[in-house]
Amino acid sequence: MQLHDMNIDAFQARLASGEAKPLDWWQACRERIEARESEVQAWEFLSPEVGHAPAEGALRGVPVGVKDIIDTCDMPTAWGTGGYMTSDGSLVDAAVVTLLQQQGALVLGKTVSTEFAYFTPGKTRNPHDTSRTPGGSSSGSAAAVADGMVPLALGTQTAGSIIRPASYCGIYGYKPTFDTVSTAGIKPFAPSLDTLGWFARHIEDICTTFSTLTRAPAIEALPDLTGIRVGVCSLPGNEALNADVTQALRQAQERFEKVGASVVVLPFDARFDDLVEHQKVVMAYEASQSLASEYQHHAQQMGPKLVELIQQGLALSYARYREAQRATTELRQLLSRRFDVDVDVILAASAQGVAPIGLGATGDPLFCRAWTLLGVPCLNLPISQGEQGLPVGVQLIGDRYDDDRLLSIARTLMRAQTG
Amino acid sequence: MQLHDMNIDAFQARLASGEAKPLDWWQACRERIEARESEVQAWEFLSPEVGHAPAEGALRGVPVGVKDIIDTCDMPTAWGTGGYMTSDGSLVDAAVVTLLQQQGALVLGKTVSTEFAYFTPGKTRNPHDTSRTPGGSSSGSAAAVADGMVPLALGTQTAGSIIRPASYCGIYGYKPTFDTVSTAGIKPFAPSLDTLGWFARHIEDICTTFSTLTRAPAIEALPDLTGIRVGVCSLPGNEALNADVTQALRQAQERFEKVGASVVVLPFDARFDDLVEHQKVVMAYEASQSLASEYQHHAQQMGPKLVELIQQGLALSYARYREAQRATTELRQLLSRRFDVDVDVILAASAQGVAPIGLGATGDPLFCRAWTLLGVPCLNLPISQGEQGLPVGVQLIGDRYDDDRLLSIARTLMRAQTG
Repeated sequence: MQLHDMNIDAFQARLASGEAKPLDWWQACRERIEARESEVQAWEFLSPEVGHAPAEGALRGVPVGVKDIIDTCDMPTAWGTGGYMTSDGSLVDAAVVTLLQQQGALVLGKTVSTEFAYFTPGKTRNPHDTSRTPGGSSSGSAAAVADGMVPLALGTQTAGSIIRPASYCGIYGYKPTFDTVSTAGIKPFAPSLDTLGWFARHIEDICTTFSTLTRAPAIEALPDLTGIRVGVCSLPGNEALNADVTQALRQAQERFEKVGASVVVLPFDARFDDLVEHQKVVMAYEASQSLASEYQHHAQQMGPKLVELIQQGLALSYARYREAQRATTELRQLLSRRFDVDVDVILAASAQGVAPIGLGATGDPLFCRAWTLLGVPCLNLPISQGEQGLPVGVQLIGDRYDDDRLLSIARTLMRAQTG
Repeated sequence: MQLHDMNIDAFQARLASGEAKPLDWWQACRERIEARESEVQAWEFLSPEVGHAPAEGALRGVPVGVKDIIDTCDMPTAWGTGGYMTSDGSLVDAAVVTLLQQQGALVLGKTVSTEFAYFTPGKTRNPHDTSRTPGGSSSGSAAAVADGMVPLALGTQTAGSIIRPASYCGIYGYKPTFDTVSTAGIKPFAPSLDTLGWFARHIEDICTTFSTLTRAPAIEALPDLTGIRVGVCSLPGNEALNADVTQALRQAQERFEKVGASVVVLPFDARFDDLVEHQKVVMAYEASQSLASEYQHHAQQMGPKLVELIQQGLALSYARYREAQRATTELRQLLSRRFDVDVDVILAASAQGVAPIGLGATGDPLFCRAWTLLGVPCLNLPISQGEQGLPVGVQLIGDRYDDDRLLSIARTLMRAQTG
C-alpha cells in the first residue's frame, strides 16, 4: 500500500471500504522516519507507542507531528531549548492536540522547534538539500511533512514561522486568521501575534484540517475562478526579490489567469511600509514580557539572538508599543476595505528566495511580518522551483475570517493545474 | 505602624526614609489574614515564607495576591477546581508574577478563583457581609484586597470577573486594554477576551501597578477636569438597573461636574445592543476549544454551568462565531471614533446592584460583557453605597490603549473629592 501520496479524505475512504486499517498510515510513517530521520532530524521526540486504534473521526488514523512548543501530557516538551528547560509532560494536552485526537488523529511525536520559536535553530535539515535550513521556527514540522514522514504537522507563526519553512520545504503551510484555533497549552511569545497553523503536502488536507478544527463546513473547490480578482502589491523588501521569487510570482499569476481570475495591481497606502517595523516592536515588547520568567532564570543559557530581542523589548517604551498597535488597528481596517472593494485574495512573496545554505540560521521572515501583524489568513503555495531545483513558494492572503474563501480559491487553483 | 491605609508610593517613601523595613507590610498582611481568613476565606494557598527581603523596585515590599489560575513555580495551582486538577508548581512562574517580583513585590499566596474562572464559586465570602458573594471569578483577590489582607491582587476578566467583584467588594478593579500585560502562564478560557488586571484599595496603587508593568510614565493627577467630557449611554440591561446603581451613577456624574467635567448623553448605534450576545458566542466557542483537554478528562467533575457553557460552545457554528468577531471589529471602530470626537471617558454601571445574598452564585457579568469584548480599559470606582450600606461601584471606560488618560482622569476625580 502506497501511503506517501495519500491525502486524508482518500485514506478515510480506504478505511471505510476496508482497504486500509486504522494504524496503516501510522506504521508507514514510522518506517519512513526510521529510514530518513538520521538525515533530516525533524523529531525532538517520537511517541513510543500508538495506543489503541481510533474508531472514528474526520482524521481517523491520520498521523500528526506536534511542534515542541505545544504541550503534551504523555511526551516531553523542551520548547526548542535543547534541554535547559524541559517538562516531562504537562498536566493536560494543549487544546489543539485534544481536538485532533478527538477526531481520530495519532500524535506521532514532537517536532523540532527553534528556541522558544524564535531564531536559534535546532538540528533539522532541509530534506531537499541537507546542507540548507528548513526554515524556522516550525523547522521539524515543515521538514517532516516535506520528507513524507507525516502527512500533517502543527506549527505556529509569530513573524514568519509557518509560511517561510513551507516555502523552503516545498509544501503547503497555513496560518489561519489570528485566534481561529485556541493557543491554550502553547508557549506564548507575543500573544498579539502568536497563531497556530499547520503543514501538509496536499491542499485538500489543509482544508480538511481547517474544517475539522473550526467545525466549519467542508471547503469545496469552485468550477473555475472566473471573476476572482487577485491583488499583487509592492511591499517593503520587494526590491530584494530575487529572480526565483519573481518567477514564482509570475507563474502563480499565469496559473490564476488560466482559470479565469484577473490579476490587479493594488497600490498600497504608504503607511503599510511601516508595518514591518511595527511588527518588530510588538514582537519584542510582548516577548520581553511573556518570557520574563525564562529570561530571569535562563538568560545565561539562551541563544544570543533571543537575549538581544528581549533586551530590545525591555528598552522599548510603552508609547512606542502603543503607537504600533494603534497603527495596526487602522491598517487592518484599510486592508479590510480593500478586500471588500478591490480584490478577493492577495498574492505575495513567501520568502526572499530558496532555502539559504547553512544550518546556523533559519532565513528571514521579512515578507511575513506585515501579514502576521494584520492577523489575516496566509497560505504558502508550493508552486515553483528556483536554483538547483529547490522549492520556492508564494503566499496567498485573504481577509480576516475569510479563511474558507481563501482556501476554496487555493484549492481550485492548485487542482485546476494538476488535475 | 498602621499599614491598613497605606498606599504603595507612601510605603516606598517610608522605606526610603528608614521609617519602615521591607518586610513590614508583608508581616502586617499576614497578621490580618491570621485574624480574618476564617471569616473571609479568600486564600487557596498561603506562601509559607517570604524569602529574602527585596532590595529595590517600584513595588519593593508590596505584598500581592495571585489568582489561582495564574502559574507559580513554588506554590500549587488548582484553577478553582477544588482539587480535581492540581499542579504542585509550574516549571516557571507566569510572566506577570516575575514582572511584579522583579520590582520587589512579595507574593503572599494564591487567591480563590471560581472553576477555571467561570461561574462555579469557591469558598470566599464578601467581607462586607459574609452571607453574600464577593462576586467572581476573581473572588479571593477582590475579597482579600477589600478586607485589608493585601494591598494589591491580580485578577482576570473574560466577561466581568474583575469589575463585578470590585463593585461588590467596594474597591478599585482595573482591566487594562486587551493584551496590555502578557497572559503567559495564565490558564486560557477565551483567548480573544481573557485580560489580566488587578485590584487595590487606592487609585494611586492601580496607577502605580499599570506604570510598573507596562513601563509607561507615572500617571499624574490633573489640576481639574475642565473640558473633560463624560459620556453616559443606554446599553442592554440598563432597564434592569436598580435604585442603588442609579444613585451611584448620579453621584459619579455629580462628582465629575463638581471638578469641571461635562456629562454628555451618548446615543449608541443600535448594533451595540448585540454585543452582549456576541460576547457570549465568542466566550462559549473559544472555551469549548480552549478547555477541550480538561473537558475530555474531567467532565464528570466539572460544575454543571461550565459543562453547559462548553456544550453550548460545541453546538455553535463557525459561521456564528465569525459573525460575532466581524461585528466586534466594526463596533470597535465605531466606538473608537466616539472617543475621538464626542467623549473622553464613558461612565456605566458595573453590576445590577449590591452583592447578591448567597454563596452559590457570583452575580451576573451582564454590564461588563460588551466592554470586555470591545477590548477597552475599564476601571471600577468604589463610589457609592446601596442597601444596608453595601458597596456599589460604577465603571469608567476609556478608548483602547488610552489607559493612561483614563487612569489620570479617575485619579483626579477620586482625589478631588476626598482631598
